Amino acid sequence: MASTDVLSDRDASGVDVRDLMADIGRRAKAAALVLARTPSGPKDAALKAAASALRSGVAEIQAANALDMDAGREKGLTAAMLDRLELSDARIEGMAQGLEAIASLPDPVGAVMAEWDRPNGLKLQRVRVPLGVIGVIYESRPNVTADAGALCLKSGNAVVLRGGSESFHSSRAILACLRQGLEAAGLPADAIQMAPTTDRAFVGAMITATDFIDVIVPRGGKSLIARLSAESRIPMFKHLDGICHTYVHAAAKPDLAREVVVNAKMRRTGICGATETLLVDRALSESLLPQLVRDLIDAGCEVRGDETVRKADDRVIAAGELDWQTEYLDAIISVKVVDGLDDAIRHINTYSSQHTESILTEDADAAERFMNEVDSAIVMHNASTQFADGGEFGMGAEIGISTGKLHARGPVGVEQLTTFKYKVRGEGQCRPK
Amino acid sequence: MASTDVLSDRDASGVDVRDLMADIGRRAKAAALVLARTPSGPKDAALKAAASALRSGVAEIQAANALDMDAGREKGLTAAMLDRLELSDARIEGMAQGLEAIASLPDPVGAVMAEWDRPNGLKLQRVRVPLGVIGVIYESRPNVTADAGALCLKSGNAVVLRGGSESFHSSRAILACLRQGLEAAGLPADAIQMAPTTDRAFVGAMITATDFIDVIVPRGGKSLIARLSAESRIPMFKHLDGICHTYVHAAAKPDLAREVVVNAKMRRTGICGATETLLVDRALSESLLPQLVRDLIDAGCEVRGDETVRKADDRVIAAGELDWQTEYLDAIISVKVVDGLDDAIRHINTYSSQHTESILTEDADAAERFMNEVDSAIVMHNASTQFADGGEFGMGAEIGISTGKLHARGPVGVEQLTTFKYKVRGEGQCRPK
Repeated sequence: MASTDVLSDRDASGVDVRDLMADIGRRAKAAALVLARTPSGPKDAALKAAASALRSGVAEIQAANALDMDAGREKGLTAAMLDRLELSDARIEGMAQGLEAIASLPDPVGAVMAEWDRPNGLKLQRVRVPLGVIGVIYESRPNVTADAGALCLKSGNAVVLRGGSESFHSSRAILACLRQGLEAAGLPADAIQMAPTTDRAFVGAMITATDFIDVIVPRGGKSLIARLSAESRIPMFKHLDGICHTYVHAAAKPDLAREVVVNAKMRRTGICGATETLLVDRALSESLLPQLVRDLIDAGCEVRGDETVRKADDRVIAAGELDWQTEYLDAIISVKVVDGLDDAIRHINTYSSQHTESILTEDADAAERFMNEVDSAIVMHNASTQFADGGEFGMGAEIGISTGKLHARGPVGVEQLTTFKYKVRGEGQCRPK
Repeated sequence: MASTDVLSDRDASGVDVRDLMADIGRRAKAAALVLARTPSGPKDAALKAAASALRSGVAEIQAANALDMDAGREKGLTAAMLDRLELSDARIEGMAQGLEAIASLPDPVGAVMAEWDRPNGLKLQRVRVPLGVIGVIYESRPNVTADAGALCLKSGNAVVLRGGSESFHSSRAILACLRQGLEAAGLPADAIQMAPTTDRAFVGAMITATDFIDVIVPRGGKSLIARLSAESRIPMFKHLDGICHTYVHAAAKPDLAREVVVNAKMRRTGICGATETLLVDRALSESLLPQLVRDLIDAGCEVRGDETVRKADDRVIAAGELDWQTEYLDAIISVKVVDGLDDAIRHINTYSSQHTESILTEDADAAERFMNEVDSAIVMHNASTQFADGGEFGMGAEIGISTGKLHARGPVGVEQLTTFKYKVRGEGQCRPK
């Protein structure tokens, strides 16, 4: 696949990607104005029609997917990457059900978040409205096309999708179903558009298209997101990494701690809410610590620890400074013994990616201090960090989990894809001198 | 005043501004952690003690101010600039009262914004917390030092202030009072710090200090903010300009329209909520339009209009394309005749800076459509755009009015200087496979 510099104006075939982006952007803005005044009915109808189109389009989608799979094999993608790329019958049905689930969520747009009157008779309301146009930049998984397109539509936003080159044909086939859904509901198909090129130069055009795109949602590996952060001129809802901690406090219930620690690390090691570092109170270094280490090793986890942890079990590998900074996303955990609550909070506020941290304790005061003083999007008491997920929070599908503090922190669902405006109603009030 | 490139690493005296920023940043972060767990009492006590320090420090503040005033005269500042710079007894008392007013606002931190339980027994809360460290970059008015410092403190944030070089001594004298207040209340003085240099290179260090500063609030002219936007690596609550519109709809009540239009433009022409463009429905071009133009001219306003407006009064100057894009901040208005509601909405969504727009009409349906379809932070019906102000909204003091859509839209008061975290309380829940 030809690739040019991300900040180049032209793609490999000489097309000016800024002109391309401006054309797409103008159509997206026009569609966004229509969507902003569209009630729930047609938006939900479009999502359901798109689900039907996915189901009746299985053959076309799989034919497109076969092109990507063949190219992937030729390119030497790993078995895991090919698996992520493949659109089986079950996965297409899963996407269709995902669209229907998003259709059934409450519509965030139009909700009155607050209202009050002023002494001069002015009536104020703070009302939820769509953001406008959202740019989503993602890597290989083609199902993101359906999820991201549907979440943006439900929240009344137009979206410009830029998928990975490996899933280009698959994503375009899914896009066609989403646009069929929009048209069936009488909505502008341009509400969901996709970059017509996989050239990286288009990404550069997107992240600098301040006239057309209100927010960029990057989904992908840390290096993609770091690069986009450095170059984007548009605000991003970014999720850099999930270096999540579980802290076993001196007053933890041993059985609860054993069960939660293994679940937090090992239920799924590849999700951002998986615990990467276990902190154990020094008071437990001769009692619970050796048992926790055995449990993890028995569950198939590699344990890297400080000196005290290595004394607890001779299978423990020495942890270095880098381990406290690493999101393994694998069956590996770093374990550190800390000198009480303050030391645990200090370690977390130094090394955490501000995603999700949990304290295990029966001491309610310690739990409150931990939850107040740890500066992360999600803080937990006596629960597995693996619950860090919009669906598990009851917020419905999410487009990611933001580790930034502005606008959307934590799970980014339909509500987080909106903003608000103030409506002020008067009877001719003038402001006095 | 020596000045180097904004992205240079060294100031004119050769000090590495990045080292300087890192030192200030580390102290700000440490102070922010303390403030985040400080209840309202000590924060309000610090604000009140700072107010007392301002009152008892009038002599020192005015001595410092005299240095700035002398330098300003030598530099040839205009009379208006010198007036903005001067700290009279009344202005110092005004700052002290401003601090007391901020102390009396409700504390946004710790408020439970939402709470709900999950079927598995997990209890979730969304709780308001401070943002962390805020960087405020402003131009000459020294009172911003007190306002911005106090708003950040009230909302539990540490702040790094970078004032204009013209007000350097005045701002430092005000800063000393704020820090006295913090110390009197037992809070870290480093919660409010100020750049020790007025070199522009320090601004470059601030807007790229992603490890230390969570959000930048720029206050100043459009060119300052445009430059910061282009170079900042940190999200900004920015207020670029206020190209506000008042639309007189065909069904407007004539007397109400006459009064509101003159107030919206002329009450104060230098504030961001002042109307800059008047749109008048074509249905009114021979009835109300000539009267509106006469009223404005009688009030001392220069009127620039399209052809129809010029026909209404021969004192009207021809408006060009640039006039629809201009924030005059002066006794000048551009006036355009539009073909009904849709044309008015289209003009506004094309030229507005998304700050504040008002429709004057007795037609409730037209008003609703206008308020729903105009994509601005504040939309009004039968009210003067001059009400676009945090104080007038009942939100208390504001640090600015954000024309961006993310996080803080409209007036940025203490609540908008916070974010939130999720607290999740369990009893040992593990996530099922």
